[in-house]
Amino acid sequence: MEIPKTHPRYESLMKREKIIEALNKGILAKAGLIAHGRGETFDYLIGEKTTPIALKSIKVSAAYLVLAKNPVISVNGNTVALAIDEVVELAKELNGKIEVNLFYRTKERELAIKKEFEEKFKEDIETGKIKILGIDDANKQIPNLDSLRGKVSEDGIFSADVVLVPLEDGDRTEALVNMGKKVISIDLNPLSRTARKSTITIVDELTRALPLLIKYVREFKNKDREELLKIIDSFDNMKNLKEMIDYIAERLKNLSLEEL
Amino acid sequence: MEIPKTHPRYESLMKREKIIEALNKGILAKAGLIAHGRGETFDYLIGEKTTPIALKSIKVSAAYLVLAKNPVISVNGNTVALAIDEVVELAKELNGKIEVNLFYRTKERELAIKKEFEEKFKEDIETGKIKILGIDDANKQIPNLDSLRGKVSEDGIFSADVVLVPLEDGDRTEALVNMGKKVISIDLNPLSRTARKSTITIVDELTRALPLLIKYVREFKNKDREELLKIIDSFDNMKNLKEMIDYIAERLKNLSLEEL
Repeated sequence: MEIPKTHPRYESLMKREKIIEALNKGILAKAGLIAHGRGETFDYLIGEKTTPIALKSIKVSAAYLVLAKNPVISVNGNTVALAIDEVVELAKELNGKIEVNLFYRTKERELAIKKEFEEKFKEDIETGKIKILGIDDANKQIPNLDSLRGKVSEDGIFSADVVLVPLEDGDRTEALVNMGKKVISIDLNPLSRTARKSTITIVDELTRALPLLIKYVREFKNKDREELLKIIDSFDNMKNLKEMIDYIAERLKNLSLEEL
Repeated sequence: MEIPKTHPRYESLMKREKIIEALNKGILAKAGLIAHGRGETFDYLIGEKTTPIALKSIKVSAAYLVLAKNPVISVNGNTVALAIDEVVELAKELNGKIEVNLFYRTKERELAIKKEFEEKFKEDIETGKIKILGIDDANKQIPNLDSLRGKVSEDGIFSADVVLVPLEDGDRTEALVNMGKKVISIDLNPLSRTARKSTITIVDELTRALPLLIKYVREFKNKDREELLKIIDSFDNMKNLKEMIDYIAERLKNLSLEEL
């Protein structure tokens, strides 16, 4: 389907096309399409732009990532479908570690995702600028998760101090936090268990949040440790989530049905 | 996947399974999965139960359907996937007319849906208790809609006075209203164009709303015309939608993140 760039819902419709294409390529499970729809509604309620509330959590996340000794970006089918370029760009600002971590893990999907990275970022992989973990080396186990969903790479999530999990599920988020890791999630639903269990929750759409995260990671590399710790200490995730919920509720109340 | 009945999200997960099964059968377009996800979020925000506000619009809809001379139930892939039994039960309380009307119309999908009805309701079709229109007889055109989406049956939607459109899109809803028809939509998004353009909007989940609609249609057959007209006249759809939006906003504000 051709969508004209002038269409008022161009961005949203393009993302929908990308998601369907990823299903066709075997990158995405069918349930991933339903999950995308859930996100669409929350983004619509937020107003399809990054709120000042989300920007605060993005800055704190950037501080965590810059201070991290061994950060890892965890990716699933939806993340690869929507934001593979942004994930790679962010990884290259860090230690290059990207780990594939699927909710419905099958060999076919793992390989389809691996192929997608290898086709688009052959040189970055060959020169070691990025490492795609979690497929051939998922030999460790996250405690208190069933075996398939808990499989992780020793070099990757297992030993990471900070894990960025875009679009993660609640169980795994909680299990990672229980392992003592700092978990940064990107989740459009401020009420989800993922949102509530994460160390920091960025309530924003993935392809808007990641470029901002990259921008602040670059900027914060020039700040000293004390300054970054101050940014981290001033943040309260539950308070931020509550602000986000109130923001949505206020926005709903003030919408005029006639003007929509 | 086996889901235990005791699972707190059993209903929602079962619907998800039905939706994926319908995709596998060719009943549903891939975009139908994304649409289902959008609905899931709104249902979650509503609290996954029929509100008193929705019940009001269900009663008014029942009054319209009982008074109608030529009511038609329009169905698409998502409706068939989730609520084929309820649609047939309601049709049998009326004149039996069900019309297949797809947003992404392909011969394959039309036939997959026809097959689904024929397999499950062979006797009802053969005895004429229900009629599946819109596949072999979609020879008329709704004005101001592109040709594929505007195709309708002369016996069905084209000549109907009241059309029930579960999960319809905004363009078609508006075009039907512009033809002078009373349009009853079932839509979980109170802000959608469908919701705002319909004569009556039931903001509720399909498989909860339809049994209630059936119940009130049965009950209202015993009421006289004057009484039903009074129910209709007392209703203001925009006011009802606004109440629904306020309900969601209040519910959001009062949710305690710790107790979720």
